[in-house]
Amino acid sequence: MALTTPEEEKQHNNNNGCHMNLAISHYCTGEPQTNLSAVINHYVHTLNHFNFRNLGYPTNQNFDYDALTPLLQFHLNNAGDPFVGSSFRLNSTSFEVSVLDWFANLWDIQKNKYWGYVTTGGTEANLHAILVGREQFPDGVLYTSEDSHYSIFKIARIYRMQCVVIKTLISGEIDCADLKATLLHHKDRPAIINLNIGTTMKGAVDDIDLVIKTLEESGFRRDRFYIHCDAALFGIMLPFLKAAPKIISFKKPIGSVSVSGHKFLGCPIPCGVVITRSEYMNASSRDIEIIGSRDATITGSRCGHAPIFLWYAIKKKGSIGIQNEVENCIANARYLHNRLSDAGIGAMLNEHSNIVVFERPLDHEFSRRWNLACQGNIAHVVVMQHVTIQMLDSFVIEFLHKRSFSRFQDYGSFQPLCIAKQVGTANCSCSMHNLYHDCAC
Amino acid sequence: MALTTPEEEKQHNNNNGCHMNLAISHYCTGEPQTNLSAVINHYVHTLNHFNFRNLGYPTNQNFDYDALTPLLQFHLNNAGDPFVGSSFRLNSTSFEVSVLDWFANLWDIQKNKYWGYVTTGGTEANLHAILVGREQFPDGVLYTSEDSHYSIFKIARIYRMQCVVIKTLISGEIDCADLKATLLHHKDRPAIINLNIGTTMKGAVDDIDLVIKTLEESGFRRDRFYIHCDAALFGIMLPFLKAAPKIISFKKPIGSVSVSGHKFLGCPIPCGVVITRSEYMNASSRDIEIIGSRDATITGSRCGHAPIFLWYAIKKKGSIGIQNEVENCIANARYLHNRLSDAGIGAMLNEHSNIVVFERPLDHEFSRRWNLACQGNIAHVVVMQHVTIQMLDSFVIEFLHKRSFSRFQDYGSFQPLCIAKQVGTANCSCSMHNLYHDCAC
Repeated sequence: MALTTPEEEKQHNNNNGCHMNLAISHYCTGEPQTNLSAVINHYVHTLNHFNFRNLGYPTNQNFDYDALTPLLQFHLNNAGDPFVGSSFRLNSTSFEVSVLDWFANLWDIQKNKYWGYVTTGGTEANLHAILVGREQFPDGVLYTSEDSHYSIFKIARIYRMQCVVIKTLISGEIDCADLKATLLHHKDRPAIINLNIGTTMKGAVDDIDLVIKTLEESGFRRDRFYIHCDAALFGIMLPFLKAAPKIISFKKPIGSVSVSGHKFLGCPIPCGVVITRSEYMNASSRDIEIIGSRDATITGSRCGHAPIFLWYAIKKKGSIGIQNEVENCIANARYLHNRLSDAGIGAMLNEHSNIVVFERPLDHEFSRRWNLACQGNIAHVVVMQHVTIQMLDSFVIEFLHKRSFSRFQDYGSFQPLCIAKQVGTANCSCSMHNLYHDCAC
Repeated sequence: MALTTPEEEKQHNNNNGCHMNLAISHYCTGEPQTNLSAVINHYVHTLNHFNFRNLGYPTNQNFDYDALTPLLQFHLNNAGDPFVGSSFRLNSTSFEVSVLDWFANLWDIQKNKYWGYVTTGGTEANLHAILVGREQFPDGVLYTSEDSHYSIFKIARIYRMQCVVIKTLISGEIDCADLKATLLHHKDRPAIINLNIGTTMKGAVDDIDLVIKTLEESGFRRDRFYIHCDAALFGIMLPFLKAAPKIISFKKPIGSVSVSGHKFLGCPIPCGVVITRSEYMNASSRDIEIIGSRDATITGSRCGHAPIFLWYAIKKKGSIGIQNEVENCIANARYLHNRLSDAGIGAMLNEHSNIVVFERPLDHEFSRRWNLACQGNIAHVVVMQHVTIQMLDSFVIEFLHKRSFSRFQDYGSFQPLCIAKQVGTANCSCSMHNLYHDCAC
């Protein structure tokens, strides 16, 4: 899709911050109208405009599910346990089990050793996994790093669990020194550990092996800890990276892994996958006669379309296709990181990551235009499949242009934001740290 | 769609109880295949076969969203608070707010007095509503009737809440005498009450006014109780029933109402709506910078398509259309109830309900063929929009035919199941209670 100018873009934006034409809302009130098609057409036009400008969120916009449109005429519902089936016959549990088997294989766990399901997204997957952990250790303490997804802190509150927040390194990885000190402080209670593979903002991958070592060194035997790996985006990517070892593997003493379905694979509907060890599930589910199944999931009625989207994406791409996409995203992320660094913009890119972190643009309209995700002094671009070199070039050129006119341009000398606290002095381009680099002290 | 014979049906069934051709599963493994379209076509054919045989589940199969197929090319995500908007621009929060306003109006609460969102289904709506209640009263006791949806008991366990199960009347309604005795037993702690509008199996509507009176008589002032109304199916139907007074209304001291979106309105994807009072939400949500919104929902990423389906259905049907559909479903349910009763089959139909309860067919294949939902000695038919008089006639004729060959036909005298315990002696046709009716004693 051709990129538009900022002036053209303005015509598509409203002024209330909700980023969509709220004029559609009045169509919903009152009696039937004849212009439903006009509203939908207008909406599709607006979406088309935004679709390939998404740089800040980890959603793959490059998908084509036209072949699945006939399924839109059915209500598909996978209520219950996908392995038990359901008495509601319009289900897609066969596709679901196929998808689960694929992920189980990807993460090194045998078919008869795992249980899992396709969730409504990463949060439900985390909800399920941490509940499994809590059911194993009802008085366990939940440990998670300060860079964890916001759902984890919400889940702790919902589940009435004590949650201890662990510091992170500059990269965003969990700080195992702080973890150890904290574990020792609570050594009388089992540990439920949420690990980020990787973090939402910086794409940092917590070191599973080092965390296990830390647990052992702190006196936690394997029957006194439960590890959940929140691998929302990287759960699919890492296993296909030639340069990465088997980071995610059930051969390690982990309890569960979750991933989002709409992120790397791409899906119209948010969805996710959670895989855990089957031994944990046998005690914590309940047969429900009315659905002819077992209630072992957080939600009840579950989307039957999402597993088919995932099945189709996995099948269509194939292993080689996925591997190529992963490598391309990583390569393009490196390209962006280099371009930003070369242009004197503070930036950071973790190993095995497609998330480029950099100083937050001060022009709000520019951030909205590129749909950036921002946090404090930093922003990030997640280089997904729809993000091309051409887009990245346009983005950097425009960023530099906007930056040169920023309000920090006083007295003829440009003053970039200091982001050393977020990305380290080596990656910061503010006047103080830039000077520091130059003197190589 | 033409109905098929049991023999034709058999060709569509597999033998493993999962009701779908599991042969598709092998397509998911290995490298790309060229026959994805063939698998989808086969699946669509199978679904078509089942689609209009669903009698046992409250899903409206009569919908047509062909006009919305262009939306399948976008990932739409309403992460965050629909009223705050989101920095992820591919959202449908405008449609969502329109849908929420419609429900708020339906249930008598002003726009500036409510908060809500479109959920992934009835369970998430209940999860949210009961959490709101628990946040109001952290040490509250959860009361719910024994006929409640299975999600309620799961939620109590997940939320670590004390849950007290209240007996029901024969109709399935909550027994307010038992509720009162139980409330008095726990009068030192606030009450969080889940009411069923109506129950999953019998379609019984708990009497909100009587429950409020019972609370007051038991010494619970309005600042010491929270009522959630789980109106999964009837939340849309009751307000459109001429014969029903304003059963669901926020003018009563209730805290929240939930409804499923895929049930009465019909939707390919499971979804739901929860509406609560805005005063409860201000304290229990958290701003999340990375999504440019407020985290006030159970799930994180939320389906952007579901609100558009709901918006489209509401808009296309209009109030008169919905009212006609409700009255037609109720009328057809009465027709089925009369036909079963006239044929000597024990059956029950609650007032304002489209759920006909009757003795469980003993032929398992017959139950599967009509996709019946069964529980103990009873089964039910939920008369939704796709259920025609012709279907009901076929069903009754086949049921009578199967029944006459059942294993209870010994010594020349037929022995129907006794279901007096479930539906009352007046609705039971077993030999003992039938005799009782005849003698009018």
